[in-house]
Amino acid sequence: MNSQEEIDDFVRNGHEQYLPHLTIDTVIFGYHDQQLKILLLKWVGYNGWGLPGGFIKRREPLSDAAQRILQDRTGLASIFLQQFHTFGDSPYRLKERDTQTLFENYGFTVEDSWLFERTLSIGYFALVDYSKVAVRSDFFTNDHQWCDVNDIPALLFDQNEVVEKALVTLRHQIYHQPIGYNLLPDKFTLPEIHRLYEAILGKELDQRNFAKKLVALGLIRKLDEQRAIGPHRSPYLYQFEKEAYEDALKHGIVHTY
Amino acid sequence: MNSQEEIDDFVRNGHEQYLPHLTIDTVIFGYHDQQLKILLLKWVGYNGWGLPGGFIKRREPLSDAAQRILQDRTGLASIFLQQFHTFGDSPYRLKERDTQTLFENYGFTVEDSWLFERTLSIGYFALVDYSKVAVRSDFFTNDHQWCDVNDIPALLFDQNEVVEKALVTLRHQIYHQPIGYNLLPDKFTLPEIHRLYEAILGKELDQRNFAKKLVALGLIRKLDEQRAIGPHRSPYLYQFEKEAYEDALKHGIVHTY
Repeated sequence: MNSQEEIDDFVRNGHEQYLPHLTIDTVIFGYHDQQLKILLLKWVGYNGWGLPGGFIKRREPLSDAAQRILQDRTGLASIFLQQFHTFGDSPYRLKERDTQTLFENYGFTVEDSWLFERTLSIGYFALVDYSKVAVRSDFFTNDHQWCDVNDIPALLFDQNEVVEKALVTLRHQIYHQPIGYNLLPDKFTLPEIHRLYEAILGKELDQRNFAKKLVALGLIRKLDEQRAIGPHRSPYLYQFEKEAYEDALKHGIVHTY
Repeated sequence: MNSQEEIDDFVRNGHEQYLPHLTIDTVIFGYHDQQLKILLLKWVGYNGWGLPGGFIKRREPLSDAAQRILQDRTGLASIFLQQFHTFGDSPYRLKERDTQTLFENYGFTVEDSWLFERTLSIGYFALVDYSKVAVRSDFFTNDHQWCDVNDIPALLFDQNEVVEKALVTLRHQIYHQPIGYNLLPDKFTLPEIHRLYEAILGKELDQRNFAKKLVALGLIRKLDEQRAIGPHRSPYLYQFEKEAYEDALKHGIVHTY
């Protein structure tokens, strides 16, 4: 959707193709080089930073819609997307939307549109290696950034709350679901996976206990192979146990209480 | 909403008061006497069992809507309700709804209604002591039961999936949030809280480690008081640490990895 005509049709008749009252917002966490970031887009008409998002087609499964929106924005296909919360409480989510001004900023005069109505938002997050993502611009957005999770600016609407909730969910989930398969090299050192977990959790973890636990859970396996990274420094390499990993993804990690 | 006139108005004009395309389904878990059950309602027109649910008013915060629906059904106010998932994938959630037949069963002939449109559902769950709940019937439902979670019949629409997802979420959450304050007596024995956790998790827990962990987390405290329950049997009583409990509710239980 990039031409003036397409946008005009979307504003006037989009509700024939999309469900009204509902959007999807995606929080794309990116991990690279020991840092956890999120993808922000610059919305031209609002002159502000916000999350990638979009609408659900009238006959489209909800999770297909989330995948489509993610792919449109990032080119990423078949990424694990996790629904985490539906937002409908903040003042911004209770009233008609101030998108009239937005469209005026784009040069449209619209008296009435399905886009002005009250809209709840369903939040999804994903975790990707951001060095592999090619973000696309479109009519509504003209810039992007990967922003450190500890340094997020004031976002549009209630989206700071959306990001915060995604982060809390991701941090809880790390205790129940394995992560890292697409974020680490095939063979990695304990400090590498340790730093991934610390970046996500935003706190220090005891390195010894952490590694022991992952091995005890059967999620990673020590290889008979070392990596030479300096004089007298050749840490052992580890690998994910693919089967146990897939199983834990499906059924969750079983903790003892 | 109980008279024929009110229902007729709801079917024809309800979209003026409520948002279309969205419902709330509530999974009310009830714990009592070492058993975990869920509340099912008999929907007259469908001749089947289903969950309590309802619609969101046009200017109503989402979580207020969930509270209102719960209170309408159970008389329970200010209960902790947890949103857990929004359902929009199953075939039933993709197409127009077969509520036409439903309304014919109630004696209405309706050509077209906002209720026939595709509807996604936002799921909430609560955990209550079911001995304290007085379930109310209304025009659409004429019976209820507290059904064992291990013995749930085929429910309406995609609601078996809704219940399953609620149960999985509750079981994960029990590792991050304290539970039991409203389900156990003020002073309880270790076997009592142990059986509550086992009922929720649906599996056996090592009693020694379980108690140690709860004490180590600072969530419960051993009292200098015993309960005489038989000859030579007077187990020590425990109490929740209110402050630590409230704190953990807010910020989550911090595990070590």
